[in-house]
Amino acid sequence: MGEVEVSNKQVILKNYVSGFPKESDMEVKTTSLKLKLSEGDSSVAILVKNLYLSCDPYMRSRMSKLEGQYVDSFTPGSPIVGYGVAEVLDSSHPNFKKGDLVWGVTTWEEYSIITATEGLFKIQHTDVPLSYYTGILGMPGMTAYVGFFEVCSPKKGERVFVSAASGAVGQLVGQFAKLFGCYVVGSAGSKEKVDLLKNKFGFDEAFNYKEEADLNVALKRYFPDGIDIYFENVGGKMLDAVLLNMSLNGRIAACGMISQYNLEQQEGVQNLFCMVRKGIRMEGFLVFHHYHLYPKFLEMIIPQIKEGKITYVEDIAEGLENAPSSLIGLFSGLNIGKQVVSVTRG
Amino acid sequence: MGEVEVSNKQVILKNYVSGFPKESDMEVKTTSLKLKLSEGDSSVAILVKNLYLSCDPYMRSRMSKLEGQYVDSFTPGSPIVGYGVAEVLDSSHPNFKKGDLVWGVTTWEEYSIITATEGLFKIQHTDVPLSYYTGILGMPGMTAYVGFFEVCSPKKGERVFVSAASGAVGQLVGQFAKLFGCYVVGSAGSKEKVDLLKNKFGFDEAFNYKEEADLNVALKRYFPDGIDIYFENVGGKMLDAVLLNMSLNGRIAACGMISQYNLEQQEGVQNLFCMVRKGIRMEGFLVFHHYHLYPKFLEMIIPQIKEGKITYVEDIAEGLENAPSSLIGLFSGLNIGKQVVSVTRG
Repeated sequence: MGEVEVSNKQVILKNYVSGFPKESDMEVKTTSLKLKLSEGDSSVAILVKNLYLSCDPYMRSRMSKLEGQYVDSFTPGSPIVGYGVAEVLDSSHPNFKKGDLVWGVTTWEEYSIITATEGLFKIQHTDVPLSYYTGILGMPGMTAYVGFFEVCSPKKGERVFVSAASGAVGQLVGQFAKLFGCYVVGSAGSKEKVDLLKNKFGFDEAFNYKEEADLNVALKRYFPDGIDIYFENVGGKMLDAVLLNMSLNGRIAACGMISQYNLEQQEGVQNLFCMVRKGIRMEGFLVFHHYHLYPKFLEMIIPQIKEGKITYVEDIAEGLENAPSSLIGLFSGLNIGKQVVSVTRG
Repeated sequence: MGEVEVSNKQVILKNYVSGFPKESDMEVKTTSLKLKLSEGDSSVAILVKNLYLSCDPYMRSRMSKLEGQYVDSFTPGSPIVGYGVAEVLDSSHPNFKKGDLVWGVTTWEEYSIITATEGLFKIQHTDVPLSYYTGILGMPGMTAYVGFFEVCSPKKGERVFVSAASGAVGQLVGQFAKLFGCYVVGSAGSKEKVDLLKNKFGFDEAFNYKEEADLNVALKRYFPDGIDIYFENVGGKMLDAVLLNMSLNGRIAACGMISQYNLEQQEGVQNLFCMVRKGIRMEGFLVFHHYHLYPKFLEMIIPQIKEGKITYVEDIAEGLENAPSSLIGLFSGLNIGKQVVSVTRG
């Protein structure tokens, strides 16, 4: 007892990636692990069974070799690090006990020993799908909340544009903005996603950016009087077109720029002078600087979920073997909604 | 009496300009004018003698054909419109009387009839050079004040970088930042200007961007620990290099982008993703939205000028004939300090 050794599948980053990541940049390897923390070890840790892992676009940058930056690279030869939902199996930390459910930073494997427990939140509400803690109730949910309400300074009736609008964050920003009383338009990359935006998430309008010859023309169609708020998830050409269409004193929450992550050379944005001329504020933000707002966020969103006022679409891949393709699929938009990996099948 | 007709030299924009403006895009023409407002005219106006005219980079965009934008084009065939200092000769406006001195929006000619009097400020302090109301005590002064104190949210000890740092706005931003307790570095385009920054305006460091093969390397030399605040006057390659060197939660006041104004195709800025990764805020601002702060600004700056705590360098061209070359000189950096035109010679 306590000495049970189990096999532990892991998703390993083989080497630093440049350009578009491929499945072969990762490998699924089986190691083994004792299902108990060593008693002689004085470091405080918890042993968890990972249930759900979160595929997030920001992870792409950690696959590159980064130097002198504010995020660390993943370590080649080691499992990928990311957000997930897990169950505590053993703990030497006074705040965690066997059976607790947590979300936060874990590693891409079946079982993990976590020492950086300050990156974990205990899950209190279990009458919602646990996978939600990788999305609507986790980091992406907080990102949408902080980005829209704190960064965009929205006012009722304002005109809001969201790119990558059916993604983990975008679908929430659009719904928050609608509930708040804004006019909301979203862009996405397929007919199916556009349908979701209009029919499931209640966006006022939506369009498939891949079918627009001129993004400037497309934006003018939906925003003849200008865009007051842009929730930026994609960067590049879309940002350039948006800048031309922003209103006086418009605000841009710079949440991500997924169109640029795999380019060796970033696309240049040419219309930044619009920021001067129209008094535009563009603001990047680091969601983990705002985690103190998490309880307030939960208080708002749990009832909205239960009352069906907010909905959330997930794309759940089953089995750790499918984690590499799920992560890579983000960059060609294969996912419909939040991309999650369920560690065990069905 | 009152029917005296005088000659009135004007600087006319001949046609819309594209690319780099030339002296020949303007012409100096002599018309005539009665030195009295018509009594039969019911519109409220003032007749002024223009004393100083202000050459400002933003004027370049008004020389182009603009459509559906927040600034109007100049009217080809009519005198150029800009900031200036003037003396009231006649008035049908209850708030202005003969002999008043004003600064604000006037036209490039010897005498103007101004109906848009809401764009004028009455000059109360005359124990400073009157030309200062085109610069330190006028729109550029307010731009520096609002941009630094309101937009940049400075904290004592922060590291500030100013581009076009010897210009009308930059020289003040640097001095404000120094008085506030910041570390300040400026860039400019000649040895003479760099000397001014270090020896007259008290910048901690300064460099000639034209002599730097790699702006990123130059910025790393002066900001090994990153830039907290960037006061952006130039755009393009400098902005790209600055983005790489910004600190976490850095702020950029986007005041102007003079390097881009004469380009048919704007340079692309490639490092905007730094804004996401480092939580950077970049904010354009329209100084005239902040003119309610002018009395507060004067209260601060008039004593600083009188006590010699703040200095201001002007480059005064004499005679309206020299206005076109003075305006154009801004775009190749011919001016040393604030470019002013004295309407009458010496």
